[in-house]
Amino acid sequence: MENVMNSEVDIKALMKQIGKQAKAAAAKLALAPTAQKNDALINAAAEIRAQKKSIMTANNKDMAIAEGRGLTGAMLDRLKLDDARIEAIAKSIEDIAKLDDPIGDVIDTKERPNGLQISRVRVPLGVVGIIFESRPNVTADAGVLCLKSGNAAILRCGSESAHSSRAIHKCLVTGLKNAALPEASIQLIPTQDRAAVGELLGLSEYVDIIVPRGGKSLIERVQNDSRVPVMAHLDGICHIYIDEDADLEKATNITQNAKLRRTGICGAAETLLIDKKIAADYAPVILSRLQDEGCEIRADKMIKEIFPAAVEASEEDWTTEYLDAIISVRAVDGVQGAIDHITDFGSNHTDSIITESAEHAEKFLNEVDSAIVMHNASTQFADGGEFGMGAEIGISTGKMHARGPVGLAELTSYKYQVRGNGQVRP
Amino acid sequence: MENVMNSEVDIKALMKQIGKQAKAAAAKLALAPTAQKNDALINAAAEIRAQKKSIMTANNKDMAIAEGRGLTGAMLDRLKLDDARIEAIAKSIEDIAKLDDPIGDVIDTKERPNGLQISRVRVPLGVVGIIFESRPNVTADAGVLCLKSGNAAILRCGSESAHSSRAIHKCLVTGLKNAALPEASIQLIPTQDRAAVGELLGLSEYVDIIVPRGGKSLIERVQNDSRVPVMAHLDGICHIYIDEDADLEKATNITQNAKLRRTGICGAAETLLIDKKIAADYAPVILSRLQDEGCEIRADKMIKEIFPAAVEASEEDWTTEYLDAIISVRAVDGVQGAIDHITDFGSNHTDSIITESAEHAEKFLNEVDSAIVMHNASTQFADGGEFGMGAEIGISTGKMHARGPVGLAELTSYKYQVRGNGQVRP
Repeated sequence: MENVMNSEVDIKALMKQIGKQAKAAAAKLALAPTAQKNDALINAAAEIRAQKKSIMTANNKDMAIAEGRGLTGAMLDRLKLDDARIEAIAKSIEDIAKLDDPIGDVIDTKERPNGLQISRVRVPLGVVGIIFESRPNVTADAGVLCLKSGNAAILRCGSESAHSSRAIHKCLVTGLKNAALPEASIQLIPTQDRAAVGELLGLSEYVDIIVPRGGKSLIERVQNDSRVPVMAHLDGICHIYIDEDADLEKATNITQNAKLRRTGICGAAETLLIDKKIAADYAPVILSRLQDEGCEIRADKMIKEIFPAAVEASEEDWTTEYLDAIISVRAVDGVQGAIDHITDFGSNHTDSIITESAEHAEKFLNEVDSAIVMHNASTQFADGGEFGMGAEIGISTGKMHARGPVGLAELTSYKYQVRGNGQVRP
Repeated sequence: MENVMNSEVDIKALMKQIGKQAKAAAAKLALAPTAQKNDALINAAAEIRAQKKSIMTANNKDMAIAEGRGLTGAMLDRLKLDDARIEAIAKSIEDIAKLDDPIGDVIDTKERPNGLQISRVRVPLGVVGIIFESRPNVTADAGVLCLKSGNAAILRCGSESAHSSRAIHKCLVTGLKNAALPEASIQLIPTQDRAAVGELLGLSEYVDIIVPRGGKSLIERVQNDSRVPVMAHLDGICHIYIDEDADLEKATNITQNAKLRRTGICGAAETLLIDKKIAADYAPVILSRLQDEGCEIRADKMIKEIFPAAVEASEEDWTTEYLDAIISVRAVDGVQGAIDHITDFGSNHTDSIITESAEHAEKFLNEVDSAIVMHNASTQFADGGEFGMGAEIGISTGKMHARGPVGLAELTSYKYQVRGNGQVRP
């Protein structure tokens, strides 16, 4: 959309036009056969490979600007593309093409006593707005997940990745064109004008759902300001609870993995809860392992007495998502104490109990009110791919519509199809 | 809640307190066993029978005020209670007690290659806000559907039914108390202060979903102002399309039923579309039948020529929900013409095609973007009871969360329960 990039147009009118175009595209996408959608995806992947050079040129521009602005190493790394990363983008598009198309699936069918056949059939949501930061590959991932699930996408990338995202978006549009699908099926909105996000959040006439992906301040703003329903999670304050009946080896390995496998993801554990009854025996083993691998330990009084190398935790630590090699540790009164702590300080994302007691496990699984509750498993499994969904656009901690990983099926709605032979209601 | 009725308290603080109480009650309800919830319901039904006299006294007050305000006959009738209606309220509560409890249902389970067992289990949404008008029985229906599905309810009745609703609500609270469930599981908010509705719509910290039931202006206000997700439908502009391959007898009977069985419900047909090719043959038969039964016909030019007794329709007729014995009629170009008309003028509620052509039927069922699409059946079947759900709180035309009739299952969310034996993510 060349016109979309012209910053001189009135942003309100422009966003309305984008919304309108998306809605029209969505009506066509809803009826597009799977083969045609896959055709667009395979074409887009090929185009991304073919345009590797121009994508790299665009990315170099973004990198130069970012360096000039003094962005940190981690942020620069997220932004950077290279041959392998561009190939990964193309490959990921092809992987999504291979996933089953949820649209048209019959969820259930029943026959009523009067002979009416009532089926629920999956249909797309319509128009999905996605607001994301820095990683340019999200442009492809997000657009392509929407397309495969029959939804039109309106994408808003971070200004850091504007050139890279635009270059990738161009390839997606080529794929759409080659498959004779509307170009407005995936639109990228201007990054120059910060008001565009506000306008997008108000487009409830055209946009069915907003999915923000990024830091806490972005999500917070979207959740506060949106007139359109939002699927997202604000925090990932994930807990591991070591029960009195835990197997120490499992407890140690799972805690190490949940905290340190990757510290920057939302499913990383941030707080470790240990039953008081076994704290003196278990804490030294588990915490030494973490400390040996470079993790900072912030503990409550009881744990600090047992493991003096720990720093003393403040109240704030229980609600902090470190996304770093830091863990807060607290002794609690059994499984009920753990549930109470999670209820008070958790973020309804992912929490895991380590125990050999089936009774304690079931209590925890039933009573912790989080999108994902686990028994004897690492919280780092909180991921659409690990759940067998193939790909996800994010994880939702809200209870409306979808909870947990949001994959293709979660980007759909349903309609009732009722088949009769002349029935009238008495 | 006696304190709730004190109009001198600051309404903002009061509503916040109600929200907080509801959230605390919801946490307990989420874990309440089915038997305990049913116990509360059966107790409430018994109390309604026992309190028949005081409910009638309260209703007489409402009726006197309504008559004084000059309310119309239909509205007075909706407001009026008598022995039979009170018995029906008690019976309806008992019927909901008999329905299957959706909470705890395992929606699906899969085992991943690494041995993780991943199940989706139904949990309540949390706190449901319901805003409704005139009919006092909704107090019981709405509160009881929420309770059975493990949700706390915050009810706001119309000021006309304030005394009746309060008397019925008192019986529900007695039921809760007798079953040792929190009294705040079902709260009724004051009707004196009109600001209460606005406050409720802003309680996104405590309220998970708002369900408005009432006239267009109420729904419109709620949909525009709510910071909490809304499930509702604004209009029920339902269509019957008579295809060229329709069976004339079915077409006539279904149209008569869809329009006239009850004209005041949202599933009543408001517009009849007839394929041009058979209009001259079919329209006179179908329209005479309607006219004979007292229905006003508002037709486009072509139909008016065929059936001169019709009034000429204006553009406005295609978007008017008459809720009365009036029908708009238009000739269209085949099934595609019908789909186009419904896309332009429909309200995504319920639409039905009458045809013996499987091909035309499937095209209509797939391409009409409404919550409920039908083939050879009356639109008056658009009802949770008729769909086998036992009871409904309304019909949703939005695509988020639930679409079509909203029954017990639609008032739930889910959580993922993941069972492992020590798995860590590679």
